[in-house]
Amino acid sequence: MYVVIMAGGSGTRFWPLSRRRRPKQLLSLFGDRPMVAETVERFVSFVPREQILIVTSEQLAAAIREAVPDLPPENVLCEPFGKNTAPCIGLAAAAVRARGGTADDVIAVFPADHFIRDVDGFQRLVRLAADVASGGPIVTIGIEPTKPETGYGYILRGETRADGSAEVVEFVEKPGRDTALRYVRDGRYLWNAGMFFFRLDTIEREIDRQLPHLSAQMPTLADALLRGDTVALSSAWELVEAVSIDYGVMEKAAAVRVVAATFGWSDVGAWDALPEVADVDESGNVTMGDVVAIDCHGCVLVGHDRRVLAAVGIEGLVVVDSEDALLVAPRDRAQEVRNIVESLRHRDPDLV
Amino acid sequence: MYVVIMAGGSGTRFWPLSRRRRPKQLLSLFGDRPMVAETVERFVSFVPREQILIVTSEQLAAAIREAVPDLPPENVLCEPFGKNTAPCIGLAAAAVRARGGTADDVIAVFPADHFIRDVDGFQRLVRLAADVASGGPIVTIGIEPTKPETGYGYILRGETRADGSAEVVEFVEKPGRDTALRYVRDGRYLWNAGMFFFRLDTIEREIDRQLPHLSAQMPTLADALLRGDTVALSSAWELVEAVSIDYGVMEKAAAVRVVAATFGWSDVGAWDALPEVADVDESGNVTMGDVVAIDCHGCVLVGHDRRVLAAVGIEGLVVVDSEDALLVAPRDRAQEVRNIVESLRHRDPDLV
Repeated sequence: MYVVIMAGGSGTRFWPLSRRRRPKQLLSLFGDRPMVAETVERFVSFVPREQILIVTSEQLAAAIREAVPDLPPENVLCEPFGKNTAPCIGLAAAAVRARGGTADDVIAVFPADHFIRDVDGFQRLVRLAADVASGGPIVTIGIEPTKPETGYGYILRGETRADGSAEVVEFVEKPGRDTALRYVRDGRYLWNAGMFFFRLDTIEREIDRQLPHLSAQMPTLADALLRGDTVALSSAWELVEAVSIDYGVMEKAAAVRVVAATFGWSDVGAWDALPEVADVDESGNVTMGDVVAIDCHGCVLVGHDRRVLAAVGIEGLVVVDSEDALLVAPRDRAQEVRNIVESLRHRDPDLV
Repeated sequence: MYVVIMAGGSGTRFWPLSRRRRPKQLLSLFGDRPMVAETVERFVSFVPREQILIVTSEQLAAAIREAVPDLPPENVLCEPFGKNTAPCIGLAAAAVRARGGTADDVIAVFPADHFIRDVDGFQRLVRLAADVASGGPIVTIGIEPTKPETGYGYILRGETRADGSAEVVEFVEKPGRDTALRYVRDGRYLWNAGMFFFRLDTIEREIDRQLPHLSAQMPTLADALLRGDTVALSSAWELVEAVSIDYGVMEKAAAVRVVAATFGWSDVGAWDALPEVADVDESGNVTMGDVVAIDCHGCVLVGHDRRVLAAVGIEGLVVVDSEDALLVAPRDRAQEVRNIVESLRHRDPDLV
């Protein structure tokens, strides 16, 4: 089994901690290690480090390698530039092929920046999904929804089979509030967590069938990776389809199964998600760093290590301090940090 | 006429900007200069700098002298330690006497850290009050109340006389909400702004009559000031009554008059008072420093010069950033900054 961790994202939703050059996967939001290192750590007990690959961008590669020093540096692959997830997975498949992978090797793909509470449960489900995938179908992990979340895509599952997996009836896009509520009540819908398992020959076959441009470049990509030829890689990369794995492959794949998970998962989309996944004090606050909170409730308070963050009597606020910028917003408007980032972008590129 | 500016306060109500060693009078909350410098500046057009004295503490003297470099450094007097306002004024009177002041010199006393909007109007009223005081009575400036403020003491005035002053019927303490409302509706009550005018012989006579211990030390204080003998000053200071000028002198003084003012005044008691006295944007925010505010209303946002303060969608909050500490609180709980200061006092003295 190969593990592929997609770590090319450059979001700033955790601004001011996250920046273009230090996106979420490089932040230590939980525990001492960057999220990408936590993600790698979930596999090292049952997958050899040589078979754990990270796909990222040229801009982030050095920081990623620093974040996971135990991984062979050549296992951190660079996309020449961002082309969405289908080419990213194609590149990973080409890399596995270039390293001598065989048709029946299973590749498991994961985002680098998600939260998982029950790591044992996660590992058990990864083994189950890989087992099912080794029989031929593409397998995804779907999360049993715990609330009518409108920020995730959903997966409609069919009957559960003897092996613990279910047919995927349909991938559905992020729903509105009412639809999300219906999905949760229905019981057949799962959150799409962006985790995929497939045999090397399965993904190659689906790419051949659905993404002809990517398919045509697969041998060139593998060869360029093998030779470390970034110019050839870029030229080939220019020609491939920029499309997500969901749209580009999964929706029309020959056989897709889902295994349902309850291991406690979140994509930790923005600051307001922190209380779902981090330690919360008796007043409902998440505090990180040097924080003095008096009579505060339901807040996310992230102090900078050279400054005390003192809060009195505030409710439902996000306050995040950093070296050169400070954010204050209500939790339910934490998504709007992008407006701040947008208004700062032209002023000082280092601030975003 | 001599001007005495009381600048001994060591409050931290403007924490984290104000600290024990950098209290409000040393902050530049309005304009470019520290408040004590603004206070001095209101007099230099009509009082010689040699006759403007500042009384402060040993701890603050160097910073005060730096804040008002145009003032002769020996005009910044130090109390050996804080003993409330009556001894402070006694010390100032002793200083005037030591400098060759005569019985009919008028001394005008002002706090160092108050806001005055209409400086011309203020100057006119100061001249009027000094004129009245030169005839014998103690004169105070009372501010026509613009709201039922519970944070100020009030002065009940009698009939207004031909010279524009009125008898003081009574000094009344900080009222409750209902009483304050009654005072404002009554029309005869004024805010006590802590500004007093008296002839040198008048204050000496009142001290003789009401504060026997201070009275006994007055010659020693004058002599110690003249010789720069801080040991003698301290010894004498130990023996004087620690009492406010209001309780110790004004309430039982032989003749007290008040002149009513409408020049726009505030004691700027805490962060929540800033919108009354500083420039307010169209959304009701006061912003200082590098602030990006999107959809914020009624906030006080004070950025640090090495950091951008970015706020989205917040209302009625005080956010104050500084080198080593950051405060977030609702405006109506800004007074509770003292709780923060209290909880930090034992941890790191420099933080408070």
